[in-house]
Amino acid sequence: MDFKQLSKQYKNELLENVVPFWLSQSQDHEFGGYFTCLDREGKVYDTDKFIWLQAREVWLFSMLYNKVEQKKEWLECARQGGEFLKEYGHDGNYNWYFSFTREGQPLIQPYNIFSYTFAAMAFAQLGLATGNDEYSAIAKHTYDRIIEKQDNPKGRYNKAVPGTRELKNFALPMIMCNLNLEMEHILGHEYVEQSGTKLINEVMNTFYRPELGLIVENVNADGSFSDTFDGRLLNPGHAIEAMWFIMDLAERMNKKDIIQKAHQITLQTLEQGWDKEHGGIFYFMDAKNHPPQQLEWDQKLWWVHLETLISLLKSYRLTGSQESLDWFEKVHQYTWTHFKDAQFPEWFGYLNRQGEVSLNLKGGKWKGCFHVPRGLYQCWKELEKF
Amino acid sequence: MDFKQLSKQYKNELLENVVPFWLSQSQDHEFGGYFTCLDREGKVYDTDKFIWLQAREVWLFSMLYNKVEQKKEWLECARQGGEFLKEYGHDGNYNWYFSFTREGQPLIQPYNIFSYTFAAMAFAQLGLATGNDEYSAIAKHTYDRIIEKQDNPKGRYNKAVPGTRELKNFALPMIMCNLNLEMEHILGHEYVEQSGTKLINEVMNTFYRPELGLIVENVNADGSFSDTFDGRLLNPGHAIEAMWFIMDLAERMNKKDIIQKAHQITLQTLEQGWDKEHGGIFYFMDAKNHPPQQLEWDQKLWWVHLETLISLLKSYRLTGSQESLDWFEKVHQYTWTHFKDAQFPEWFGYLNRQGEVSLNLKGGKWKGCFHVPRGLYQCWKELEKF
Repeated sequence: MDFKQLSKQYKNELLENVVPFWLSQSQDHEFGGYFTCLDREGKVYDTDKFIWLQAREVWLFSMLYNKVEQKKEWLECARQGGEFLKEYGHDGNYNWYFSFTREGQPLIQPYNIFSYTFAAMAFAQLGLATGNDEYSAIAKHTYDRIIEKQDNPKGRYNKAVPGTRELKNFALPMIMCNLNLEMEHILGHEYVEQSGTKLINEVMNTFYRPELGLIVENVNADGSFSDTFDGRLLNPGHAIEAMWFIMDLAERMNKKDIIQKAHQITLQTLEQGWDKEHGGIFYFMDAKNHPPQQLEWDQKLWWVHLETLISLLKSYRLTGSQESLDWFEKVHQYTWTHFKDAQFPEWFGYLNRQGEVSLNLKGGKWKGCFHVPRGLYQCWKELEKF
Repeated sequence: MDFKQLSKQYKNELLENVVPFWLSQSQDHEFGGYFTCLDREGKVYDTDKFIWLQAREVWLFSMLYNKVEQKKEWLECARQGGEFLKEYGHDGNYNWYFSFTREGQPLIQPYNIFSYTFAAMAFAQLGLATGNDEYSAIAKHTYDRIIEKQDNPKGRYNKAVPGTRELKNFALPMIMCNLNLEMEHILGHEYVEQSGTKLINEVMNTFYRPELGLIVENVNADGSFSDTFDGRLLNPGHAIEAMWFIMDLAERMNKKDIIQKAHQITLQTLEQGWDKEHGGIFYFMDAKNHPPQQLEWDQKLWWVHLETLISLLKSYRLTGSQESLDWFEKVHQYTWTHFKDAQFPEWFGYLNRQGEVSLNLKGGKWKGCFHVPRGLYQCWKELEKF
């Protein structure tokens, strides 16, 4: 495998195709922030704005400025989105709405904790890029809200009847592994190490079920397996993405056994999640092979494949495993063949099981300027190390 | 077309295949109520119970008892499910939960108005079947709750920020067209006529958009078109199902112009919703042909096709339109070829765009003892009239 050539491929795709697409097509020069509902050619088909994606684009352009090159247009793109978010994205108390109109009028209440996590991530990175302490303070205030809300993230919008079936969800501890590293300059080294030990334990000992060899999306409050739709739910892309967050954290904390375990879980999940008939990684599965509730279970999503590429390269670099490298080649092949649009910039997001494009949008409610460029960046940087 | 033969085909499938399946496989003889999560062969794969489906099965067996034959086992099946629902399905004040455990412990709060509408429908029909006034009273109490909640059906679980974008949703007025007729013996003739006039106006003049020739799922509070994801959303099966509710109501109220309009809308919707490439009717579409948010947009669902068959037969009987009959043949062909399981009882529910089985369950969280048997019954009875 020609790592140099591959590294260049990822870098070029990022800097010559994907980043220019978002820079030129997504910025709302009239009201601020970003359009993310962009069709195949990059034209805006809906003007609603979603906090997840607004925050993630602020983060991405700040990160590029901080880590790739101090380009003025990248900083300005991040800054104007940050200002829009700061002004309209929350209720005045750093409770982050889920979505707002083009003009910034709130549409959906702050029920979704990941609006908070991505806002914190965005302002922490924007603080670094600009040196403006106000942004770092917003990140810290938001982080505090997350900690307050972590035991009942949906708050009053939680529809579960208390006491019948209390489940813990995987997504928040998973995201916190990444967020703590993103915010280490604000949270402090000691906090990140203490919290990291707890988070690693939660992900690797509670949500990882040794009897399955897999991570489940939900467990009972006491940490046991729940033989219910929610308890049996597998999201291979989610589990694999978590493994590179864990590998980053374990590398930072110098925990070799955890790296080894994260590497193993990556391969086990991929073995389970790979569609042997049509290729690609399934979106949802049931741990007992019952029918999942999610009708889109067999679709192939862009972020699943990009996150998997990252985890495989990290697991190869950290363990030297040939199996990781073989899987990387296979997933790389599938991903570039199926998700890259040969005709127009940016990548497709949604394929059916057969690998045909099911929705030809380049951005929407959930796909924005995030997984494709972050994945390309991470792979470029990992490949450069070989 | 041999109507006699076809009528027999629908009747036999109902009475010899589908009804015996639910009677033998779904009843929970230990705790009461019904299992609905049944795999291809009818084995229980999950024991959670969903109020929508519990109520619909009470309704179906009561209806069969009232309209087909006074079979003791049908009545007993309906009655035991009704008792289970009465005991565990609501909070004591006829606020109906969304789901409960096998034993009847509530899982999900009463956030969903259709748990109420299907409970009202169930107890009204069970009251008729048993002559037990307690059941009819439950139906009436529940109906009153629906009317109280109709302007904000989700109540405190409504995540929309008040004042930014107030939308009205199509589903409730649509269901009320059917529920009022179901409950006419409880609500009274005068009420049904008065309410019917309002509902017909709402469906046919507010949600039907003449500029599109289609019904949309959401409109602005003032009745205007909303050029947003929600406002552009089309659900062809929903719109077509509504048209047979409207035809029933218009027939009952002797409104020939409304019948004619419902017939036209059925055909226009089918023309729009039919997949010219692979056959079958799409699940979701966007009125402006933008990408819809629903990843399952191109799947072919059982209920869409069964409800369409009903609407086409009613529209043929009431208008004599050859076009309705031609469409019926086409949809009948697709439906029986793709949804009927040649090997095991009951029908498949979820196909991919190509018409291949995507989930081979016979029941789940949303598919229960309802659309297949109701559709077969309705088609049998309509075909008998020719």
